This record gives sequence, C-alpha cells and structure tokens, in this order.
Amino acid sequence: MIFLESDYNNGAHPMVMEHLFRTNDEITNTYGFDKFSEDAKRKIMQACECPEAQVFFLTGGTQTNATVIDGMLESYEAVITVETGHISIHEAGAVEASGHKVIALKDHEGKLSASDLRSYMEWFSNDESKEHLAQPGMVYISFPTELGTLYSAEEISDIHQVCKDYCLHFFIDGARMGYGLAASPDITLPWLSQHCDVFYIGGTKVGTLCGEAVVFTHQNAPKHFFTIIKRHGALLAKGRLTGVQFDALFSDNLYLRISRHAIDMAMRLKSLLTTKGYQLYIDSPTNQQFVVIPNKRVKTLEKHVAFTHWGPYDPENMICRFVTSWATTDADLDALKKVL
Amino acid sequence: MIFLESDYNNGAHPMVMEHLFRTNDEITNTYGFDKFSEDAKRKIMQACECPEAQVFFLTGGTQTNATVIDGMLESYEAVITVETGHISIHEAGAVEASGHKVIALKDHEGKLSASDLRSYMEWFSNDESKEHLAQPGMVYISFPTELGTLYSAEEISDIHQVCKDYCLHFFIDGARMGYGLAASPDITLPWLSQHCDVFYIGGTKVGTLCGEAVVFTHQNAPKHFFTIIKRHGALLAKGRLTGVQFDALFSDNLYLRISRHAIDMAMRLKSLLTTKGYQLYIDSPTNQQFVVIPNKRVKTLEKHVAFTHWGPYDPENMICRFVTSWATTDADLDALKKVL
Amino acid sequence: MIFLESDYNNGAHPMVMEHLFRTNDEITNTYGFDKFSEDAKRKIMQACECPEAQVFFLTGGTQTNATVIDGMLESYEAVITVETGHISIHEAGAVEASGHKVIALKDHEGKLSASDLRSYMEWFSNDESKEHLAQPGMVYISFPTELGTLYSAEEISDIHQVCKDYCLHFFIDGARMGYGLAASPDITLPWLSQHCDVFYIGGTKVGTLCGEAVVFTHQNAPKHFFTIIKRHGALLAKGRLTGVQFDALFSDNLYLRISRHAIDMAMRLKSLLTTKGYQLYIDSPTNQQFVVIPNKRVKTLEKHVAFTHWGPYDPENMICRFVTSWATTDADLDALKKVL
Amino acid sequence: MIFLESDYNNGAHPMVMEHLFRTNDEITNTYGFDKFSEDAKRKIMQACECPEAQVFFLTGGTQTNATVIDGMLESYEAVITVETGHISIHEAGAVEASGHKVIALKDHEGKLSASDLRSYMEWFSNDESKEHLAQPGMVYISFPTELGTLYSAEEISDIHQVCKDYCLHFFIDGARMGYGLAASPDITLPWLSQHCDVFYIGGTKVGTLCGEAVVFTHQNAPKHFFTIIKRHGALLAKGRLTGVQFDALFSDNLYLRISRHAIDMAMRLKSLLTTKGYQLYIDSPTNQQFVVIPNKRVKTLEKHVAFTHWGPYDPENMICRFVTSWATTDADLDALKKVL
Repeated sequence: MIFLESDYNNGAHPMVMEHLFRTNDEITNTYGFDKFSEDAKRKIMQACECPEAQVFFLTGGTQTNATVIDGMLESYEAVITVETGHISIHEAGAVEASGHKVIALKDHEGKLSASDLRSYMEWFSNDESKEHLAQPGMVYISFPTELGTLYSAEEISDIHQVCKDYCLHFFIDGARMGYGLAASPDITLPWLSQHCDVFYIGGTKVGTLCGEAVVFTHQNAPKHFFTIIKRHGALLAKGRLTGVQFDALFSDNLYLRISRHAIDMAMRLKSLLTTKGYQLYIDSPTNQQFVVIPNKRVKTLEKHVAFTHWGPYDPENMICRFVTSWATTDADLDALKKVL
Repeated sequence: MIFLESDYNNGAHPMVMEHLFRTNDEITNTYGFDKFSEDAKRKIMQACECPEAQVFFLTGGTQTNATVIDGMLESYEAVITVETGHISIHEAGAVEASGHKVIALKDHEGKLSASDLRSYMEWFSNDESKEHLAQPGMVYISFPTELGTLYSAEEISDIHQVCKDYCLHFFIDGARMGYGLAASPDITLPWLSQHCDVFYIGGTKVGTLCGEAVVFTHQNAPKHFFTIIKRHGALLAKGRLTGVQFDALFSDNLYLRISRHAIDMAMRLKSLLTTKGYQLYIDSPTNQQFVVIPNKRVKTLEKHVAFTHWGPYDPENMICRFVTSWATTDADLDALKKVL
Repeated sequence: MIFLESDYNNGAHPMVMEHLFRTNDEITNTYGFDKFSEDAKRKIMQACECPEAQVFFLTGGTQTNATVIDGMLESYEAVITVETGHISIHEAGAVEASGHKVIALKDHEGKLSASDLRSYMEWFSNDESKEHLAQPGMVYISFPTELGTLYSAEEISDIHQVCKDYCLHFFIDGARMGYGLAASPDITLPWLSQHCDVFYIGGTKVGTLCGEAVVFTHQNAPKHFFTIIKRHGALLAKGRLTGVQFDALFSDNLYLRISRHAIDMAMRLKSLLTTKGYQLYIDSPTNQQFVVIPNKRVKTLEKHVAFTHWGPYDPENMICRFVTSWATTDADLDALKKVL
Repeated sequence: MIFLESDYNNGAHPMVMEHLFRTNDEITNTYGFDKFSEDAKRKIMQACECPEAQVFFLTGGTQTNATVIDGMLESYEAVITVETGHISIHEAGAVEASGHKVIALKDHEGKLSASDLRSYMEWFSNDESKEHLAQPGMVYISFPTELGTLYSAEEISDIHQVCKDYCLHFFIDGARMGYGLAASPDITLPWLSQHCDVFYIGGTKVGTLCGEAVVFTHQNAPKHFFTIIKRHGALLAKGRLTGVQFDALFSDNLYLRISRHAIDMAMRLKSLLTTKGYQLYIDSPTNQQFVVIPNKRVKTLEKHVAFTHWGPYDPENMICRFVTSWATTDADLDALKKVL
C-alpha cells in the first residue's frame, strides 16, 4: 500500500526520535521549564529573528487554536475566518466551547481576501446595532490553507493592515507551516514574525509525534498564558516531550529541509497526476494535492493507494486528496506511477 | 414625530397594564408558581389545543433562544439556522456563550429552505470526518423571519420532516409570533404545536413590557429546565410579572386581535409606500416593511418619522425598515401619508 | 394567612406601579436609552453622590451577579466569596456557567472576614504552584448577607483594603441593599460608592416587580458592557420597564423610606419572637429573621403563617426564616402575635 | 542532586521508549485507530478483566478530568469532590471552564468519606430550594489521593453505594493509579472496574512521556465521546503516541512491576526519614511522602535534594513532599541517607 492519505501517518522524523531516545535518561524540570524546551525556544526565536518573541509549546492543532483564541479574546469577542477555515468546520466547535463566535467569510480557494475583510469591518463599524453583535477581535488564517493554497506576502500584508486599522489580533495557523514556507517564494519565519501578532509552527504534521510551537511576535502573550494553557487542559507535565522534539526540528535547519523534501515530492506527485490526465480540483503549490476522480476509478485506485475522500465533486466524481510529507519517498511515487 | 421604528417603543397594551395594575395588591407564590402564571399556562395550552404542552415564561428573546438551545442540546451539539437568523447575528454570541456552534445556511429572503437543510444533513451524514465536526442537534427558524417574511405551512412541514429524518430538535423563534399568525393563511398555534418540538410566543413585541412564553409541544421539556433557566439568569423571583401579562394576552383572544390590527396597519403602510413610488426591498406580509430610499430622502424623512436604517442598499440608497405594532394608529399613517 | 415567607411575594410598591401605569402611553427609545432610564440613572448617581458612577439596569439578582462577575473577570479568574454566599450555592452554577470558579471561604454568620481573605491571598501569593490555580480576580460579598447580618463600615473598609493590596475587584451584592442601608448605623450609598468597585441596588426585593441597578463606582465599567449584558441574555428591549421603576424608587427618597419601614417591622417581629421564647438562630438586624422551632410547632404554625424552612437545626428542630418587607403591616404582626 | 521532587522529572521508562523507538517507522492510521492503540486497549481490558470496558487515550491529567467530567455531566450538573481534590484546586478552573461547578466537601487526609457524601446528598435531596442549586451529577475521588493516602476497598464500596443510591456517576482519577494499586492490600484493576463508572490509568507519572487511559466500565461512554475529546482539544492526530506507550506499559505486567518498585523505594524513603527523626505530616502508604521540616533545615537540604515545598506548616516549619517513582534507585536513597 502506498500511503498518501495524510501527513501524520508516520512516526517522528528519525532525527526527532533519535533526540527523544538519546535524552530520555536525563532528569529535567517539569511543565516546560526543562532545558530542552528552553533550547528549543531560543532556537525558534533565532529562526524567526525575533528577540521579542514569546514561545509556548502545545500538543495539537485544535488545542492550540482554541487556547490561543480564547487567550487573546475578551469573552464577548469573535474570531473572523473563512468558511473553509479549520476552526470553522473541523474542530468540533472547540472555539465556541470557550464561548467565542466564529465569523466565517467566503473563501477564495481557501484564502481570506483582505478586501472582503475590510468590507466586513466597514459594514460592522457602521452598523447601528453593532453593540448587539459579537465584537470582532481577531482574524485567523491558515498558512498554507486547508486547501493547500498559499497566501503571497502581499496578501498577508494587506490582511495585516486591515487588522491594524481595526484593532484586530492577527493569528496564523501553521499546522503545516513548514510546507508553506518551503513552497512560498517570499515568506519566511522572520517575515511572518513582523506581519502578524501570533502564529504557530506545526510539529505534528512536520516531523514530530505531537507538538505545536506558538510564537507571540511582540511580547504580546496574554497575561497568565501559562494558567490559560493549564485551564485548557493543554499543559504537559513532561514539557520535555515537545521541547526535545522542537529542539531537534530547529537544529541544523531540519524543519525547513524536511519540509522542502515534501514539497519536492508534492510537485512530482502533481506532475504524475496531471500527466495521467487527472483533473486538479485546486492548483496547490504545497503538500496537499486535490484531484477530481471518477467514483469507479476511486474504488480501484484505493486498493493500492491510501488517500482521502474529500467529498463529492458531482454525482459521478469525487474530490480526492493526496498528501506528501517529510516521509514520502521517490519509491512511493514510483509505485504510484504504476497504478495511476 | 411618527414612530415606526420598532414594535417595542410603546409600553404595554392597555389591557395588559390594567391587569398588572389590578392584581398588584395580591400576594402570590414566587418563581412562577403564582396563580397568574398557572392561569396563563393553562390558557396558552388551550389556545394551542395542546394538552401535552409544557409552558415556561422567560423575559426576552435572546435570553429565551440561549436558554432553550442550551437546554435542549448536548454540549457538543450545534444549532442550524440561516445567515439572517437572529441567533446568527444579533444576539452578541449568546448561543456560543454556552458553548454551542451556530451553523448558518444561506437564507432565501430570511427563510431556511428544507432542501438546503436536507442537503446539508446528507453531506454531514456522509462526511468521513463527521465525528470531527460539531454535531447538528437542532434547527432554529423564526416565524415571521427577521426580514418580515413568512413560511407557508408546507415549508414548515418540510423542514419538520427533515428534522425527524435526522433526529434534530425543531425550534421556532416567535418573538413576533402574533404578527406571523395574523398574517398567515394557514398556520395557527394548534398547527404549530404539531409541527415543531418547541416554540415561543413573543410578548415583548406584541403587547407586554417583557416576557416570552416557551411551549414544549410534547412533554419534551429538558429535565431540570427550571434549574437551566436559573443557571441562565433567566428566572424571575416575581414570576407573576410575566404570568399576569400573558394571562391578559390570552384572555378574550387579545393576542391575536392586537396582532391582526398591526397587520392591517402594515398593509396600509405598504400600500402608502408603494403608491408613493417607494421600492420594496422585500415583499413582506407582516408588520415589518423594508423599502429602499435615497440617502438624501432618508435625511429629510427622518425629521418627521422614526424608522430604522437597516443598512446600505448601494452607495446612493439605504434599506429602511418601517414597523407597525398593536399600538400603531390610523392617525399615525395619515400623518405619514403627508410627509412621504 | 400571614405572609412572612419572602420579600418578593408582593407586587410592586404602589408608587412604583403608579409610575408604570402613568407613563405607559409614552413612546420611548429602546434598550435602556429611554428618558426614564436616563432619569433614574441620574437620580441614583445623585443618591450615591458619585458623578463618576456608571449605572446599568438588569432584571434579577442571579443574572446581575453572573453578568457583572463575567464582565469584570478575565476568563481564567475566579471570584472569592463565603460558603453561604448566594453565588456559592443558590444560583444553580450561573457563575461557573460562564467559566469562572467560585472560591468559597468559611463564613462568620454569613460574613467574609478581611483577615481570612488576607490569609488566603497571602497563601495564594506565596504558593509555588499558583500559576496552576484559578487566579483570584474579585471578592464578592452581600450587604446584607444571606443570613441577614450586616457588615460594619470598618469590616467593609478592611476587605476593601485587602482587595486594593492584591488587585482584586470588590463587588457588593445588594439584592436587599435597602434593608441593609436602613439597618446600618454607618453605611450609606455615598460611603459604599467610595469603598468598592461595583455594587448593585436591588429592586426586586425592595419595591419593584423586577430590576437591579448596577453601579460601577469609578468609570470602571468593563468595555462593551452593553454587549456583555446582551450576550448574557440580560438586555431588555423595553428598558423602560426597569428605568421607570427605579425612577420611582429614587424619587422622594422612596427606596430608603420603604426599606426603613421593613426594618421597623423586622425589629417588632424579632421582639415578638424572642418574647414568645423562640430561640434566634442568628441575631439579625435586618429584614430576615432566623429562629429555631421544634418540628411539631412548625407544622401547626404554618397553618397560619407562611415562612421558609431554612433547613434542619437538629433532628427535632428546624431553622425557620421570617421575612418582612416594605409591604409588611402592623396588622400582619398583630395577627402573628396571636398565633405564635 | 538527588531528585525526589515529583514522579515526572524523568523521561519514559526504558521499555516504553524502546517501544516508541522500535515502532517509529511503521505507518499507521490516525486519531487512535492505529494497531498499537487497538492492542493497548485490548490489553487494558484484559488487565481489568472487563470485556464491557471502553478505553480512550488522552494526554494529561487535567485534560482527562475536564473531558470526562464535561462528557458525563449535563450542562447544569456539578461534580462533588473534597477540598484537596486535584480538580478543586490545582487545575486552574478547567472543570468550571466547561461550565460545571465543583462542590468541595471536607477531606479526611485527602479522602472523601462516604458518610459525608451521604449527608450532603440527604441535605440536598430534602432542601426545598434544591432546584435553585447546581445539581450533583458525579462524585470524583483520586486513587491514591493528592496527599498520598489510599482508600480501602470498603471505603470505595461505600462511596459507590451512595452514588448508586443517588444516581451519581462515580469517577476515579488514577493519575498515580499504579502506585495506588501497588500499595493497596485489596484493590485491583478488575475490582475497580466493578466499583465505579469510569476511572483512568495514569501514564505520565507511571512510565510514559504522556498519556492517560480512560476506562468506562460498563459500555457507558458518553455518546459521541470522540467528538467530545476533539472539542476539548484532547485528540491526538498521531494517536499512536499514547497507544504505543500503553501497549508497552500493559505488556509483561510492566505497569504494576514498575509501580511496585516505586512503592518499595517509598517505604525505604519513609523509613529513612522517620529514623532520622523527621515528623511525618501524613502517614502515606504510597509514593508521595510528606514530612515537616524546619525552614532552616529545608534551605540546607535542598542544596542536595530536589523536593517540593508543599506549604507552610507553621511559621518555623514547612511541609515538604518527597516523591519516588519507577525511576528512583537505591543509589538515590543511599545518597539521601547521607545528607538527611
């Protein structure tokens, strides 16, 4: 079986597992005050060229979104995203669970448009009943998006400007951050650190067993964020678990190197698919590739390849998602080529 | 000044105030166990021809929506409505405040379409990641809608059928129920009692100072609903306040009589507006009338008439809302005629 | 039947009802922007001699507590009270419903001791794991307490000082504020306005049908408190309902005059009870009187008098509560005298 | 430095780490549907001799408590525990964050007494205002307790009986379950499975890097518990992380063997301490030992030994906690002996 179902079917990247194994006998402080977490935070701040940054490690994506959003918003504030946003759909209402409305604007191939955002905020600001509405307090986007697409630097700058104009926190979900950075012509961690208030660097989908590194970019972590993490059930007693893994990911440029590999594999995958005549559902530059496949073909194909049924395209065809990761090999794609 | 801004600019209907005044000296039980509340409940059950009904009095619309929805849903369940639904926009996130997602489908002039609902539920039911989503548990519609439009009996039946097919509670917001019933050719309280799980009969906008009567239609009030009301801060120590008012409203058919008057006034209002060449934004059969007015005209008109700026229609024109109520008089409309 | 069960068995005070009746025909703004609400706010600010005050009207006590506490606290903050505090027990978990822990210290006849509070805060501040705890953010007391007792000015000053030392908001529940003021030798509204951050003036138990007036004492109302009220389902569309009632209560010193009457009645009641040999459970100076009565005697007594079973004192005796109010008459007590 | 500060200063037990390392290259299903999780669940069910069990893996203790309690309770229900209960104090209000009140009864050396519980429930059931209170829905105890003490089988049976009498769920926090089982003369996993509704088997403090195994004992997992886990941000994309670790812990009786070792070390530690004249604060049979040490002595001792300041005993003495774990060695205690 060829596995292209998701970027979290594998264990940890060998260097990450190696670091866990090698450091296992050490005795450390708890709750993230261990030296590995300290080292990892320092390395992340360096990679971001952001001495003002405050870094926290959480365990998974939904948890991180819910904790950061709840931590930064006032109780009566809402978060704005697009209809395809992860927090909009695929988090079982975790944001609402802490009392915050999710306002979903129309997406454009998974992306939020700065001008839609500005129109919404203009409408809101001029609405005579606005005090009867949940108050927008934050904008959330994903980089890359849930559909594999990427914002350009200009698009993010424009959203950032609207956020500044309307005093909205700007939060970037980076569950697949590495794949976004590797595929982007103009966005880097240092650039991102200057163009949003908080983002996270996903580990789970980019080489770790678990863990997401939240970066507040300008000493703007909410007061008592440690307590907020605890209250969300998101505090690891053995904080070393995430610390060690990010320490490995941010040594020797590992994070970007393995992300780059996934993108190379994704581009070869896309080429294989289009060469074979598969119709792209979206032209994605990142590690998630979406194609439209006749239902019958899906059935035969999945005897050999694991991929995701994204949803019906029309009664006869299905949108299917193929995902590469740091673990995808040329051999996987060679095998795929034969069965396509 | 001619007041057509809303249906809650007036005090109570004289019969309601009279009843409050007349009963004021009596000593009663507290928390809704007074005889007036008991009488009012009995009268409402009779008006609904629904001996299975359980009736509770709450104070206002947003409170009622939040309490009923939270009371009926499991913690992880969401409520489905339309984008123009009151709970979607104008309740400051009160539903989300108790942890529930609001899923907003596209509206059709304020109405939910049964087929859109069915499509959504089919998609949800077949989605392979559905356990990662907030679970739909209830459908919420307003009768009449926030745009003044009305569902036909067939439309509500169809929604009810989808709800039954997918085990969804069906809840009807009746903040303006009286005006809907008075304008509807085929919907009555007894009919409604057989076509949904819970609805409420709005008092605040139809003759009382405050108060909404929630009707669970088939002995299906949530267990400990009294405690749920208390927990939502919605329990009146002097439950007589709402009890007395609904006792008056449901004596001598007052509720429907005064609602009918408002609809008569609304139809005359609509006729005045269209005769004068105003463009209807929506062709509403109820007490809310929406017209498109040039911005300049708005400015001169509002020297004489109080109405609501609903929002911009385009850069030069505004959507304006004119509302009649049980208190609107022919003299009001005669005066309006002169200034239009 | 003689009614001494609670201070909310009656309708409104005649002057309050009269004002509702008389103003009923007027057309007003909605949501609390009516002239009656404006007048009432102004009169309350004058009564408090507090030009810095911000006044808001809510409907009931539990709602007010939940809304003020949630509005002033950060999500991760807790409120400190005593075990007998209303928010601790009798509000169905309404404070927890918005996510805040209630920390209950031991009470002293219903009162919080400043030194207990200081000890708790010293312990908390020195605890090495304090970031793992809900962070204390507010102190809540009731004046008078749930057991009818009263804080002295010195006791409240001392609590206020601890609050200032530890940056805690200080909130006083005044559901029975009038009765407390009438019974207190040294506490007035102007004094209170200088010794806490927020308090409320209860209407429901002191002459209105509903309504509590929240007073933020130094321009410290939470940002967007209107939206917070709405989100809690606590916003009345016809804000005039509470505005008119408080306008009446704060005209001609009505609030204090009728409260004084209730205290006079309470002192006569206490004298009747002790003269007849009933054992006081607590020596209360306010309108709630608690006595210990043999179970058998309870049964015969309640054929003639309505009072509250507070709870068992021991297997043979019950703690019973008798409550006077603005509506209690000498005739009531004459009748009581005969049956005691 | 001798580490006796906590039972989570170490990495994973070597057998656990070995299993993680060895299985790292395998490709698995996600979200807990991997074969390691399946194997671990089966082994836990066997160890519990409970074919009716439903097992779920979560990441940490506070998260597990918050998720299980929220999952099993209705929105208006509260959980009963003791004042020293972990959910009462040390979880930053995580239970309240999902809207549930924590009712804290007096503890007896960390334990809940069945008779206190019965008295509380009798009082509650007879209280005339009980519908105004948060409704007790669950009892939570810790085995062993936060003070290292252990319930006897009889004590747990008695609590279980009260729970059955009053329809309360009975939940046992087993963050240190292994150490409790190893120290208990009469309680085993099969016995526990028959005497409560749900418990968890702690991994974080007994050999894993993270992970707690929740066991619903009689097919009573809440409906959609998977979604509830997701909504609490507690779902691991790579469920294998906890699955693999519990697979190791429940192979070859590892969990009990390493727990037994920690108890042997704890008994030797206690003997060392008492022999040296240290006063026990509590006579604990488990891996947490509490002694009273003069403040000055604390300062010199902690140059050599890491232990926890539990809190002041009196102005001159401190309560200190020494903790053994599966990782404590005789060499550690030999070293301790020299510095005591």
